[in-house]
Amino acid sequence: MLFLFLAFFASFHTGKAQDEDALMIARIHDEALVNGKSYEWLSTLCTRHGGRIAGSPAYLGAAHFTQSSLGSIPGVTAYLQPCQANYWVRGDKEKVEVVKSKAGKFRLNALSLGNSAATPTQGIKAEVIEVRSLDEVEKLGKDKVSGKIIFYNRPMDPSKIRTFSAYGGAVDQRVYGPSRAAEFGAVAALVRSMTTAHDDFPHTGVTVYRDSTKTVPGIAISTNDADRLSDLLKQGPVTVSCKTSCKSAGLREAPTVIGEIRGSEYPDEIILVGGHLDSWDVGQGAHDDGAGCIQSVEVLRILTSLGYKPRRTLRCVLFSNEENGLAGGRTYARISNDKGEFHLAAIESDAGGFTPRGFSFDADTSVFKTYYRNVSKWLPLLESYGLHFETGGGGADIGPLKSQKGLLAGLRPDSQRYFDFHHTANDRIENVNRRELELGAAAMASLVYLIDKYGIK
Amino acid sequence: MLFLFLAFFASFHTGKAQDEDALMIARIHDEALVNGKSYEWLSTLCTRHGGRIAGSPAYLGAAHFTQSSLGSIPGVTAYLQPCQANYWVRGDKEKVEVVKSKAGKFRLNALSLGNSAATPTQGIKAEVIEVRSLDEVEKLGKDKVSGKIIFYNRPMDPSKIRTFSAYGGAVDQRVYGPSRAAEFGAVAALVRSMTTAHDDFPHTGVTVYRDSTKTVPGIAISTNDADRLSDLLKQGPVTVSCKTSCKSAGLREAPTVIGEIRGSEYPDEIILVGGHLDSWDVGQGAHDDGAGCIQSVEVLRILTSLGYKPRRTLRCVLFSNEENGLAGGRTYARISNDKGEFHLAAIESDAGGFTPRGFSFDADTSVFKTYYRNVSKWLPLLESYGLHFETGGGGADIGPLKSQKGLLAGLRPDSQRYFDFHHTANDRIENVNRRELELGAAAMASLVYLIDKYGIK
Repeated sequence: MLFLFLAFFASFHTGKAQDEDALMIARIHDEALVNGKSYEWLSTLCTRHGGRIAGSPAYLGAAHFTQSSLGSIPGVTAYLQPCQANYWVRGDKEKVEVVKSKAGKFRLNALSLGNSAATPTQGIKAEVIEVRSLDEVEKLGKDKVSGKIIFYNRPMDPSKIRTFSAYGGAVDQRVYGPSRAAEFGAVAALVRSMTTAHDDFPHTGVTVYRDSTKTVPGIAISTNDADRLSDLLKQGPVTVSCKTSCKSAGLREAPTVIGEIRGSEYPDEIILVGGHLDSWDVGQGAHDDGAGCIQSVEVLRILTSLGYKPRRTLRCVLFSNEENGLAGGRTYARISNDKGEFHLAAIESDAGGFTPRGFSFDADTSVFKTYYRNVSKWLPLLESYGLHFETGGGGADIGPLKSQKGLLAGLRPDSQRYFDFHHTANDRIENVNRRELELGAAAMASLVYLIDKYGIK
Repeated sequence: MLFLFLAFFASFHTGKAQDEDALMIARIHDEALVNGKSYEWLSTLCTRHGGRIAGSPAYLGAAHFTQSSLGSIPGVTAYLQPCQANYWVRGDKEKVEVVKSKAGKFRLNALSLGNSAATPTQGIKAEVIEVRSLDEVEKLGKDKVSGKIIFYNRPMDPSKIRTFSAYGGAVDQRVYGPSRAAEFGAVAALVRSMTTAHDDFPHTGVTVYRDSTKTVPGIAISTNDADRLSDLLKQGPVTVSCKTSCKSAGLREAPTVIGEIRGSEYPDEIILVGGHLDSWDVGQGAHDDGAGCIQSVEVLRILTSLGYKPRRTLRCVLFSNEENGLAGGRTYARISNDKGEFHLAAIESDAGGFTPRGFSFDADTSVFKTYYRNVSKWLPLLESYGLHFETGGGGADIGPLKSQKGLLAGLRPDSQRYFDFHHTANDRIENVNRRELELGAAAMASLVYLIDKYGIK
């Protein structure tokens, strides 16, 4: 990767312009760290509008709060973009218990997976079969799987340096596991939580049914409980009972929140910064993705407070329903395409409010090389802030904009702690560090400034 | 920095050797992340031997525990190196109160500074004068300072990207502030805690008296309380009363802990990894510097468990009394020099157990360029782990070894959270992330492996 950049360095604008840019980027960081509002905003979002799953009253509260935060920034026009999202509700019954085993009876720390079907009112009671993969269910076949509870227990690989790689290598069990189990006649699926941590927090997250007539309850259990259950299964049969009452409550209004500063020279070239405003219904959605939303709002505040007048249109977009449907991202892209808009760049922050390590870049193959070469020229300006560039996806919400052939970018924070909190009751403001959050906002504002000033073509 | 490395890349050993090294470094990381013992060891050190100021019973417990941990690693000879350290004891009385102000009376969150003198038994009561620097005390002069309590309130600069720079820019108030105040007739000094966080934790740390006949109590107060006190002083005079009972209890035995694997080819070339075993008497010394000690022990465990046979002598050294005297580092270097030893390299971890970002390197000017050029050749092997190299100090404990003209290196973790915990009751194991700790140990083991295999001359 390193060598690739060298040719570009030489051709980067030097002298006065670069000094001016270095100074502006230093001012952006000063503003974020000294006068930053991101931590206070995120505290309010978390404590007053936590558990804001799309469609919920909490989500609507969060939408109005962030609209008003955006509206408080001079020059920003803030509005809501209507969006319909399927509202999934956990309900008040959720109990998973080992009822027969060598260790007797005990309760498991469990959470229904998002969009999961519920158990019948009387619950489900069945023997557990542990598997390590979706394929294993198929190999076992209907005879052995039928009537059983399938327990997916392949851990995230702790040896991966980047935890998102470990997540990517295990999450098929959560997303497709319950559906696969149902296809082979299982009555429910338990899934080991998606984390390398060893603790008692169950991690929810979306599950998807391939066949809507074959839906069995999908339930996450904590890693400590998964280890215990696995140990017990080595000693003999284990029977588990599950009772859940989650349901889809149908389509609800869950608007995407937008704040915009119109560009002075190229108003038709949009630079988007954003995250997703919805979270899971447990916890406060602090890192996922309150942090990314508030950092995006903060980008507009920082640039405005420094008196910067953008040449292009800057748009902060807080998407709806990323967690269980992506309705916000899809609706936004459809409306944007209908209007014939062009997003020159879209930058998403959806990997937690941790110390930023850089950005990943993506674009349509017809333009990617040019864009990446051009942004790479700015690397010397960002390296002293510990930022690096790499190729890779921008983010789920901005993905549908790829067809507009602009640049997609993702903020890449340090990933080590993310899956300690992801999709749990523990994703709370106390676990966000103020400076780390602020530095992420400053990194995004710096990139927005450079793209706005120089373009990328 | 980047350009400097380029010439070296080309000359770095290529092909088979590099593949072998990449594989070994991957195995080191796997071992740290999959079978790592550092987190469990650190948990024990923190929960059973917290508050281990040099000379205390807790320190001796920590020395025996880490000696035994080192001794449990096959091939390691573990022993204690005697060291006398001044044992400073906080005592059981510590109360600082605003007793007269526009807001009435209230208590301040306070901690005596390390090595501070105590108040008289009846306490001290005096008016407070706020200053921003040591120079300001001199400018005020004896007339205005005499009989008063000097309150040093220059905050750490939050705009510094590296928090250690912000610390370096403010800590003179803690180290020399009480002494300066005493010279001008003040009766005590309050010091704003060394952190950019806004909270209620007072941060202790060493203070030094220039003149042993002029010692007034030096006391840290939390940043929230410092802000409150400063606000009150704008409204009118404020009187504070302080009562403390800290004292120096004289010299005590506080051994440095050493574990060694003798080199097979060059046993006289020592590669040291270490941290300091003592902490402050409050909190558990988790990040400062339990993390660095346990990472150093883990380096030996990792290499041994991979079957690696070092060519040079590897020595893990857990120094005594870094916090309030540096007796461990000084004694170790003196004994080493007396024996005519040569430390080819010494690597210290004393900046917290956070995600490693790289290493800083230092050496005698006569050899630095050569060493730095040679280690820089290894950078391509470490960059994919997010590690970078820079020039800068190695660490306080290994500083006295500089005259041996070996290489000094410091592990450089992400610094954003360090001063949230540093020298407080909150420096606890709960605030250490397992993976971040493990990655630091793996980074150190990787560097040790490369130095051991190739040398640096």
